[in-house]
Amino acid sequence: MQRKIFIIIKVAGAIYTQTKFLNLTLGVVPLAVGKPLERKDARIKVKGEAQYNFDLSFSDEQYLAVVRSPFAHARIKKITVDNEKLEQLGVTVGLSKDIPGKNIVHVILDDWPLLAEEVVRHVGEPVAIIVGKSPTVAKSAFSAVHVEYEVLPAVFNPDEAKDHPTIQVFGDNNIISYWQQKNGDINKGFAEADVIIEGEYRTPAQEHAYIEPQGVIAVPLGRDEITIYGSMQCPFYVQRAVADILGYPWSKVTIVQTTTGGAFGGKEDQPNQLASLAALGAYLTRKPVKYLLTREEDIENTSKRHPAIIRVKTGATREGILQAVQVEYLMNSGAYSTLSPAVLYRGALHAAGPYKCPNVDVQAYAVATNLVPFGAFRGFGSPQVLFACEEQMDRIATKLGLDPTEFRQKNLLHKGDTTTFGQVVDHSVGMSETLKQAKEKSEWVQKWKPAPGFNQVIQESRKGKYLWEGIGVSTIFYGVGLGSAGKALSRTGSYVQLEPDGSVVFAVGTTEIGQGMITVLSQIVADELGVEYSKIRMAPVDTSRVPDSGPTVASRSTTFSGRALQDACKKIRTLMYEIIAPHLETIPSDLQLEGNYIISKETKRKIMVDDAIKIMYQERGQVAMAGWDVAPPTDFDNEKGQGNPYVTYAWATNIVEVAVDVQTGTVHIKKIWAAHDVGKAINPQTLEGQIEGGSLQGMGLGRFEEIVFTPEGQVMSNNLGTFLVPTTKDTPSIHSIIVEDPWKQGPYGAKGFGEQPLMGVAPAVTNAIFNAIGVRISEIPATPERVWKAIQDKVQEEAI
Amino acid sequence: MQRKIFIIIKVAGAIYTQTKFLNLTLGVVPLAVGKPLERKDARIKVKGEAQYNFDLSFSDEQYLAVVRSPFAHARIKKITVDNEKLEQLGVTVGLSKDIPGKNIVHVILDDWPLLAEEVVRHVGEPVAIIVGKSPTVAKSAFSAVHVEYEVLPAVFNPDEAKDHPTIQVFGDNNIISYWQQKNGDINKGFAEADVIIEGEYRTPAQEHAYIEPQGVIAVPLGRDEITIYGSMQCPFYVQRAVADILGYPWSKVTIVQTTTGGAFGGKEDQPNQLASLAALGAYLTRKPVKYLLTREEDIENTSKRHPAIIRVKTGATREGILQAVQVEYLMNSGAYSTLSPAVLYRGALHAAGPYKCPNVDVQAYAVATNLVPFGAFRGFGSPQVLFACEEQMDRIATKLGLDPTEFRQKNLLHKGDTTTFGQVVDHSVGMSETLKQAKEKSEWVQKWKPAPGFNQVIQESRKGKYLWEGIGVSTIFYGVGLGSAGKALSRTGSYVQLEPDGSVVFAVGTTEIGQGMITVLSQIVADELGVEYSKIRMAPVDTSRVPDSGPTVASRSTTFSGRALQDACKKIRTLMYEIIAPHLETIPSDLQLEGNYIISKETKRKIMVDDAIKIMYQERGQVAMAGWDVAPPTDFDNEKGQGNPYVTYAWATNIVEVAVDVQTGTVHIKKIWAAHDVGKAINPQTLEGQIEGGSLQGMGLGRFEEIVFTPEGQVMSNNLGTFLVPTTKDTPSIHSIIVEDPWKQGPYGAKGFGEQPLMGVAPAVTNAIFNAIGVRISEIPATPERVWKAIQDKVQEEAI
Repeated sequence: MQRKIFIIIKVAGAIYTQTKFLNLTLGVVPLAVGKPLERKDARIKVKGEAQYNFDLSFSDEQYLAVVRSPFAHARIKKITVDNEKLEQLGVTVGLSKDIPGKNIVHVILDDWPLLAEEVVRHVGEPVAIIVGKSPTVAKSAFSAVHVEYEVLPAVFNPDEAKDHPTIQVFGDNNIISYWQQKNGDINKGFAEADVIIEGEYRTPAQEHAYIEPQGVIAVPLGRDEITIYGSMQCPFYVQRAVADILGYPWSKVTIVQTTTGGAFGGKEDQPNQLASLAALGAYLTRKPVKYLLTREEDIENTSKRHPAIIRVKTGATREGILQAVQVEYLMNSGAYSTLSPAVLYRGALHAAGPYKCPNVDVQAYAVATNLVPFGAFRGFGSPQVLFACEEQMDRIATKLGLDPTEFRQKNLLHKGDTTTFGQVVDHSVGMSETLKQAKEKSEWVQKWKPAPGFNQVIQESRKGKYLWEGIGVSTIFYGVGLGSAGKALSRTGSYVQLEPDGSVVFAVGTTEIGQGMITVLSQIVADELGVEYSKIRMAPVDTSRVPDSGPTVASRSTTFSGRALQDACKKIRTLMYEIIAPHLETIPSDLQLEGNYIISKETKRKIMVDDAIKIMYQERGQVAMAGWDVAPPTDFDNEKGQGNPYVTYAWATNIVEVAVDVQTGTVHIKKIWAAHDVGKAINPQTLEGQIEGGSLQGMGLGRFEEIVFTPEGQVMSNNLGTFLVPTTKDTPSIHSIIVEDPWKQGPYGAKGFGEQPLMGVAPAVTNAIFNAIGVRISEIPATPERVWKAIQDKVQEEAI
Repeated sequence: MQRKIFIIIKVAGAIYTQTKFLNLTLGVVPLAVGKPLERKDARIKVKGEAQYNFDLSFSDEQYLAVVRSPFAHARIKKITVDNEKLEQLGVTVGLSKDIPGKNIVHVILDDWPLLAEEVVRHVGEPVAIIVGKSPTVAKSAFSAVHVEYEVLPAVFNPDEAKDHPTIQVFGDNNIISYWQQKNGDINKGFAEADVIIEGEYRTPAQEHAYIEPQGVIAVPLGRDEITIYGSMQCPFYVQRAVADILGYPWSKVTIVQTTTGGAFGGKEDQPNQLASLAALGAYLTRKPVKYLLTREEDIENTSKRHPAIIRVKTGATREGILQAVQVEYLMNSGAYSTLSPAVLYRGALHAAGPYKCPNVDVQAYAVATNLVPFGAFRGFGSPQVLFACEEQMDRIATKLGLDPTEFRQKNLLHKGDTTTFGQVVDHSVGMSETLKQAKEKSEWVQKWKPAPGFNQVIQESRKGKYLWEGIGVSTIFYGVGLGSAGKALSRTGSYVQLEPDGSVVFAVGTTEIGQGMITVLSQIVADELGVEYSKIRMAPVDTSRVPDSGPTVASRSTTFSGRALQDACKKIRTLMYEIIAPHLETIPSDLQLEGNYIISKETKRKIMVDDAIKIMYQERGQVAMAGWDVAPPTDFDNEKGQGNPYVTYAWATNIVEVAVDVQTGTVHIKKIWAAHDVGKAINPQTLEGQIEGGSLQGMGLGRFEEIVFTPEGQVMSNNLGTFLVPTTKDTPSIHSIIVEDPWKQGPYGAKGFGEQPLMGVAPAVTNAIFNAIGVRISEIPATPERVWKAIQDKVQEEAI
């Protein structure tokens, strides 16, 4: 019999609600899982002792400079190298002809050259590399490499680029990728709707603004092997890319992740290119080559969140039941496809939100333009469409005169419901619970009232009332893991080794990128083996320690490396029980783990795990195991637009309180309530860190952050003085609310959610702005300029 | 039916004979095993691209200097540190009180302090460490650490030290360890002997003279974790030592072996001490600390081969059948026990040679003195006793008027015989075959004649015939692996990972120290998985990749890491066959490996392994496995002096031709024939390298190398200008003869033999000297001074 119990605990400021099944926990003494233990990497990072790639030294190390295109689109007519000058400077130049393997940086499609050969397609595209004994020396040789260009017409807007008659950036029609989602009959849906709202939304190129700029170091061993050290998310991607560029067997290419100061998707595919450039330099010079980007080089030349145009038409009955959602999603992919097909896939599937709706038609396109390639960023194509979706939901609620939380509640998915793409969500559906909790904690019912009339706002502001307060909400969901499009990569390895003193070292193939993975996985290992958390260490991520475990993206590391560790630990427990059983005068199947003890179920005789490990060593038993996990099945039929694309979903509600200054257009974000169903909080404290960080980054997207390009396609806002991220002064009080509706297949019930905290904040902000001043914002970020202009436009339009 | 076939092949100068069983090889297409493939590390080492510890850099790295005792035995009265001067110099000093864990360098017994507290027991014993930003800065602070000593009487000779009435270096009686070997009734044996020969032999302290001096680098991560990079044989020893010194869990101490430029036993226990010194410095300063020894520091302060006194009494019948062997073996252990108990064990068991003898009594003692601690060196206590044993054998043969090879042949062990310590050697006993081959190839029968009378030599030399030619022989054996005394460490781990392109990376816990292990293990993996040798890479040895696999000593790495790799590969084949069977429309048990193919035994349908690995990746199968091996059982009863101490034995015959200049005493070694039964030559070329290198090093022991101490116990010959190793000019032509009598439990029949090439050369040299000039040499090395003196002594003695 399963008896559900609810426990509410307050941890370090986070409120969280646990829905767990008694039979999952009875008899188990948790050592670490569920506790707010100190992050493994907290002290070394705070004290500046963690070793980032900038901290590493190699004897006779060299530095890389990259000759990049100044044009958004041009033909390379000729490259002239002044060899005499090179010799004077003691530098080495590498061109595309010097690449020993294939001149392709592999990501998904193979359109991305490492060094341009005939055509450059964006400002900053690499044309040549220079290796010298210092960054200054390397850069001083720029003048020794003369590239003669013939400038070509360029296109920057996806609306223009799609099916452009003459400018071809990718294939015939500049369409890199296409996905759709379909349900029912969209025309019938609109015919049966009482209200229909249409909107066109725009979202910006968002820079990841990780604390540590990108950087890699390529260390060759003759011309036979190479090791890349670098700040990155996906070492196995880099391994393949470098192996292809150098023409080496994969076994001869080792990738070691260095301490990574944030990534957020920006270090997913980009290190493939950076590492390949450095690897080529190392290959040519047979010396270690560093390529450590400055902030400006990084912002100018590496990927960002895809800017997007989203056109949505939504219909509902007058009772507030969704009838039809139609979306056109144009993602500006920049000059090369990189991760766009995968990013678009997630966007297409999240476009209709976490709702029931019988008639849906989502058409999603990734369109090539002559901007720097855009790529992965926390949320992976979904924040753009969720912004549009949640704006639409709010607009319908307003039109129907409903409290937007009530309108959402009528449509939200519950256990047993079917998503708009046909997947039955049969458990771990904490969607409504997050809304309920967020409403309670924020006192929504007491605070919310319909937006004031715009006329009233303007009249009162003319009398000196500039500051208007409002509250907004969004409800969103997140498909956990890579999904069916990335199915081939949905497996993870692990390695667990017991040490003679009873401590444990383990390895996985996913990376710590600031999200707290090392800590959370150490907690899982602690409980799986009955070993103290303090005695567990994760080895550095290195492609030769654990097989290709896919990328560290899609909020998958806790869940899927966790599962692989559970597999290895289970195998180790088997070895352990075989050796220990005679010592407890029983058979292995009678043994189980209880906290730090192995105990006989029958006789209750027990032994500490520490001692058991010592006995394993004495008896020369095997003490290490490789673990493996394959993600549960997924499928999606792009022809039908239906399927079961993700293994499960996380759910969230964001409520935001703002104050808008109508005189300046400045939006002050005062409070955020962020309620997330995460299945199980392995570590409530690191989880809260994710919620706070994500909420702030989501607020950045909604209110602050935008990469501005020149009309010629060059990044203008190339540092943190022009690309504005929220500072501590801008940071509101963030109330993290943890809901735990366990996913049966997740470790201890956990499901991935690391990206989700960012995803729903922007629409909650814009909805709060509307609630404050009665003005709708269709393009984010809601900067003072943009809000002010929206007010002025509406003043003109309504002739107030 | 097993049909024995003999094949003689000539490979790169080596002659080798293969005894193999047809049913072991039929149906198997060897890809790599048995072929003289190029060493994996050949090119990078030849080109200077391999990264030794001297080549590594770390940011903010510091250097260590060690304050060492100038006295062989003294009480520390007081240590005064001039803190003002330390501050001026920016250095940090560490004393024993600053050690956070235990002040013990663990090896076997726990008598070795890291930093002396009350007493120093040898010249060079560490008393304090100094950490500074360069070696010069660190050393400049020597004057800031003042140690006040009270000098104590010292003892340097084991005969004196044993049961010394007043000087206590170790325990009550200075006896560190005692082992015995017994068979029959020794008195009865001598009673039944017709001839009895007694001799006293002395062997020198031999410096390993590896190309690369010792060195380690300790890199801390706060005060929670530490990584040691270093030149070493036994990373797991170092892991424990450092964990004990710092009081860390083992999982937080990672040891990474850097490219190691030779070791020969000298980097077995010594890095425990060096790494602990550096680790203490890193702990105190929280910075990377390098301790890279100069040649002088290395020779003065690190271990060498134990000098020994061996007293042997041998009796035989007039027909040349051994009746009794009595040995007293006194090993000078120096001031601390370090590895002496283990070294002595091997010495005790090899003391009576590879012969049948019904009555044996070996009494072996490791005795503490006030010299630098002696330790492991290729042969591990056996070259000393084998020198004595083989001298004795030659002396009896002379006395009996027998050809020494014929005398030996009468007594050598054959298949089914019992060793002097009671072990039946039931297969893989190629002893006689090595003698047969060596005799044939050296044309012994044509060359050998009894030694000239000494009188004749002197008379003719007085007429101008200074140069006399002679030929000598030795027959020896080698117990493979750690033996019963090291049973607890006799297990090995491995890790094998298939890469998506069909290449393979693997890891083991034993180290490459120049012996060719990487190459040989790669060949084993190639054949076990059907993957091309060129696509296989061994990962660096790192204690967190594979569990404690014991030390890289006792000629065990090929055999025992080989077995662990076979285990991992077998498990991977199982995974592979499960996935591939449906593709070949069969069941997994019908599949087998043939060269690069997986083939159905039934239908002969097949698939290339490369393609099979790609399918494993496509189907997301597990592609990595941890392997494990436990050595076959061994036992030894020290009370009875009997047992089965080793899993199997390797066997060898050395024949040496010399020319002795009686005017100067100079011995020219002209030719060496070295015949070794190795079970199976996994790589005949690297094996030949082992034979050539070992022969030269054995020749060094017999003819050149000797560490000379001052009367105060300080090393005098502290560099390669005073400690003379054979140069290329001294190198004779070395004829390697490979005999393969497979060991059933070894990988492909291989058994360890890496130490053996050194072991039998010295007595073959001294026997050849006798054969040339009729003078016996009882103390090695047979330097010109020593040979000249032996001649003069005999001239006086015989009054010629």
